[in-house]
Parts: sequence; structure tokens; C-alpha cells
Amino acid sequence: MARVRILVTGGTFDKEYDELTGRLFFRDTHLQEMLRRGRARLDLTVETVMMVDSLELDEGGRATIVARSREAAERAIVITHGTDTMCDTAAALARASLGDKTIVLTGAMVPYAFGSSDGLFNLGSALSFVQVLPPGVYIAMNGRHFLWNAVRKNRETGTFEAVQG
Amino acid sequence: MARVRILVTGGTFDKEYDELTGRLFFRDTHLQEMLRRGRARLDLTVETVMMVDSLELDEGGRATIVARSREAAERAIVITHGTDTMCDTAAALARASLGDKTIVLTGAMVPYAFGSSDGLFNLGSALSFVQVLPPGVYIAMNGRHFLWNAVRKNRETGTFEAVQG
Amino acid sequence: MARVRILVTGGTFDKEYDELTGRLFFRDTHLQEMLRRGRARLDLTVETVMMVDSLELDEGGRATIVARSREAAERAIVITHGTDTMCDTAAALARASLGDKTIVLTGAMVPYAFGSSDGLFNLGSALSFVQVLPPGVYIAMNGRHFLWNAVRKNRETGTFEAVQG
Amino acid sequence: MARVRILVTGGTFDKEYDELTGRLFFRDTHLQEMLRRGRARLDLTVETVMMVDSLELDEGGRATIVARSREAAERAIVITHGTDTMCDTAAALARASLGDKTIVLTGAMVPYAFGSSDGLFNLGSALSFVQVLPPGVYIAMNGRHFLWNAVRKNRETGTFEAVQG
Repeated sequence: MARVRILVTGGTFDKEYDELTGRLFFRDTHLQEMLRRGRARLDLTVETVMMVDSLELDEGGRATIVARSREAAERAIVITHGTDTMCDTAAALARASLGDKTIVLTGAMVPYAFGSSDGLFNLGSALSFVQVLPPGVYIAMNGRHFLWNAVRKNRETGTFEAVQG
Repeated sequence: MARVRILVTGGTFDKEYDELTGRLFFRDTHLQEMLRRGRARLDLTVETVMMVDSLELDEGGRATIVARSREAAERAIVITHGTDTMCDTAAALARASLGDKTIVLTGAMVPYAFGSSDGLFNLGSALSFVQVLPPGVYIAMNGRHFLWNAVRKNRETGTFEAVQG
Repeated sequence: MARVRILVTGGTFDKEYDELTGRLFFRDTHLQEMLRRGRARLDLTVETVMMVDSLELDEGGRATIVARSREAAERAIVITHGTDTMCDTAAALARASLGDKTIVLTGAMVPYAFGSSDGLFNLGSALSFVQVLPPGVYIAMNGRHFLWNAVRKNRETGTFEAVQG
Repeated sequence: MARVRILVTGGTFDKEYDELTGRLFFRDTHLQEMLRRGRARLDLTVETVMMVDSLELDEGGRATIVARSREAAERAIVITHGTDTMCDTAAALARASLGDKTIVLTGAMVPYAFGSSDGLFNLGSALSFVQVLPPGVYIAMNGRHFLWNAVRKNRETGTFEAVQG
């Protein structure tokens, strides 16, 4: 059974609605609930690294994600991440030369806690890609996988698309 | 962009609740709605082959699924299927020697139309595996992939597990 | 704050999907979860009398529901009940002459555990009617209230409609 | 069958998540979908008066709501409204002396479009109260009804509570 570490960093994935203020916020990650719903039977470890909106992620935060990825004993790592700066974190991971690890970043356009989220689809996708792709840093969104340097988020459509690497 | 054909055969995936009789039944497939929710951006064709409970699938039905897989122009095929006889259909496909196609069967333990379904997770998983696995016939369930002859459904736990191939 | 007793008897309201058998069954009532979701702030007591499909409810079961209604200290009682024989139980309660109690039966066409249930709407409706209607036995469905002897379930449409009392 | 007009004014009830900006916004009302889910069988007319956050509702907006209530041919009116200034609009309606109309304001703490909304419960409640309460202006929240001058929103708990009228 594949051994996979999931590093949680926040992002839309894990946002919730605060009914007293009418604003979105972070509480706990929904990863365990999502894995239960997906009936995932992998050798999984879920580690919450931070809970932030990826627009607020600075170089220090990015360095922490790189460090946790380096320290992980697993060779397969899925990182849940806000979509806005997912490509930047992927680039930071790639430049850190983490050896023979396969790292897949994924996220969501709609919070899992809301009805219509793509999060469960993306999580199923990322966990699958991480088991079979060769070492490297990838983004898994929209049912596709992209090498870290061959992808960008299209802000008009909210989808990820291939660019010349 | 990967070109994938999805063959719909029914199964728990697509069951609905008939509020007049209190029984489960099939109407239309939910695949298009699920792909929209997953924001899938693949070159996808969805084809409804049949809408049946897989316990009612006989050899004739199985031969139809094999024929449609053979006729498909795509080299990547995902088949949504009831979990009870998914392994039998996978075996029928493998014995048919469909050449260089990668075929991934998937299903759900809970109907997509109900709140707590694993269907979206499994669909994200199957669509991902089908893009990267070598030709062959596989089952994608529980976040894992299995070669057709190395898997069985454990009816006590409702999960798929590896067996000696 | 109004004091209301909710007697749970099962019905579609509380059915769940058994993913191992593919059949509907009863486990625990969802009433507490529904009241939390509705942010109900009433002086409520929830009592599970039985968990049955109302088609399987016999005279003994109906007598139990009458007895529990009689024994209840509250003057306002909501009974969750399968829709198929809801009118029969309402009639049994009316014939029992329970004095100055206001009793409102309600149910659902789709289980609460499934996404598209009318259960939460009906519960909000029944709890409201029970606070303001005069003593008597009523059915609250489809946003309406009916006196026990002036209503029937239309099995073709799945709705409740008025009849000459 | 009771004849009821529903005046839609926006509020949390009808907010949606904009996946491109990560912000909440208004599009169309969800009232028709909610009434379908509740299988409401009343003689209902739904009229969208405005779609605003009730914190942004000024006296002009409030006057419009009063005018529409006055012009309505129905004697039973439900108004969906943001909870923050619901009591202010109720007061404006009461001071306008709308004669023999029963007006019930309701809202939601969580948008209907998100999974865990209280909106369907509150709608079932408001539609029920409006059919049986005597003429006057009321707020229906938390399964309760309050006269317009005997209620306030407790901003710490997010619930409505009785005050000395």
C-alpha cells in the first residue's frame, strides 16, 4: 500500500463560513473527513503545516513548506494549497532539489465545506497522480497534472493550463 | 490534453431515490454534473452504455461493455460500474485483449445523488490513473489502483484489496 | 419559550443508505442534527418511540404512539412519521381524545441524510404550527397544515391534499 | 390553499461564493429551488425586491420594502432579509400601518448555497407562521416567532431573543 504524506497549508480547500461575521476563515482542516468520504485506504499521514490564504504566504512560509517536504520520510507527498500562488510554491519546491520525491500540489476553487466544491475530486486526483508519477514537482488540478514549470493559473477562467516549460 | 472516453454502465454511482416508491432506481447518469463540479478540463467523451445494477449484469451485458471498449477510438477509457461485479467485468476486458488501451474501472459505495458519496473522489482518481498507467485493465477504488487480476472486493468492509495475481 | 416534545417514529425522515447491502435502513434519528442546523431555540425534548417504516406500523405500534402522546407532559407535540400511514396514526390520536394537546405529525419524502430532502423544511413548518394552532391533531406537509380528518396523501404526486372532513 | 407573497430582499439567505474572487456575492435568489425542495404546495408568488446585504440597506431601500408590502394583494407576506437589520425593517413595516396583513420576516445565518444552511428550516417556519398568526409584523427565526417590537438579534450567539416590547 502506497505511503503518502499530506501536508496541509490551508487555501480555499479548508475555508469555512463564519456565521457571526459573514466572513470566510480557517478552523481545522477537512482532510480527514474528506479521506473518510473517499474511503481512502492508503498508508496516509496528514500534517497541518499552516492554515493560510495563499495570497498571504510569504517567502518564510514557503521555506517552511519546503523544509517539511524535505524532512518527510515519505517519497510521495501531496500538498493542499491555495490556488493563487500554488505555482510559486511549486517552483520553490522544485528549486530546493528534494531528490527522488514525487510532490503533487492541489487545491480547490470552492471550499469543501460548501456544497459544490471540487475539493474531493482534486484530492482523489492528486493522491492518484502521486502514486504513479516519477519524482518531480507537479500541480494536479482540473483532472490534469502539470510539471511545476509548465503551468499557470488562468485568473479569468479559474482553471490551470499548460504553458511552455 | 488527454483524450479520455467514459463508459457509463450504472452502478451505485448513478442510483437515485424514488420518492414515490421509496426505492432506488436509475434515471440519467450524473457524470456530466460530476465533471462540472470537478472542473475537469480534459478532452472527454461520456457514453452511456447501460444503466444497471452490476448484480444484474450478465455475460451479454459484459460483452457489450467489451465491444464498446474495443470500438472506442480513445486509448484511455474509464468505466463507471457497480462494485459488486466490477472484478468480473475487468476480467472480461482483460481476456478480450484490447491492445494498447488503458482501461480503469471505478464505482461508488454511496450514490452520488446522496450527500456523502465517495463518487467524486473515485472519479478524480480514475481519471488521473487512466492518464498515466501503462496499457492494461485496472480497478481504481479507495484511492488505489489494482491490476484486474490482483484485486477483490471485500464484502464485509466494502473496500477493495490486493490479492495474489 | 415554547415547550415542545418531538416523538420520533422513523419514516423516510430517518432512513439511511447501507453501503454494504445497498438497502435503506434505520440507525439513529437525525432530529438532533436537524435541530442544530435549524438553530432551533425552543424548549425541546426529543424522544425516540420507535424506528420503523410506517407501512410496517401495526395497531400495537400505533397504540404505543398514542400512549406516549398521552403521557407527555408537554401540550405541544410534534411526531415524525412515515408518510404512507401518517393519516391513520393521526386518526388514532384524534380518537384517543388527548384533551388540550396540539399534536402535529410531519415526515419527509426524501431521507434527510440524502442531499435533497424536504425534511428540514417540514420540521421547521411542524415546529411552527404546533406553537400556534389550537388543540387538535394535524398533519403538516408541503408547507400546509391539515386537520387529521380533512387530508389524504395523494400517492401519484407524493403530496398531501385537502379532502372533505 | 393559502395565498402568500414572498418578497426577496437578499441577505445571507441568497449569498453565493464567487470562486474567481473568493468573495460572497448575490446572483439570483434560491427561493424557487428551496420551495421545490420543500415540496411547498401553497398559492405562492415570489417577487425579488432587491438583492442586498442588510447592512447596506438604507431608509430608501426600507421604504421600497414597505411600499411593496403595501401594494401586495396578498394578506400573508413573507420577507427574506439579512439578519443584521431585520428588526429595523420590521419596525419600519409596523410603523407603516399596513392594516390587516400578516407579515413575517425571516433569514438565514448561513447561505442556502452552502451545505449547512438553516435557510430551509426558517423558510418552512416563516411560511407556516404567516398562515396562522393574526395581522401584525413578526420575525421568524430559530423556530420561534416574535412580534416586531419584542425581539433583538444577539450578535454574540447569532440567535434572536425576546426583549420587553
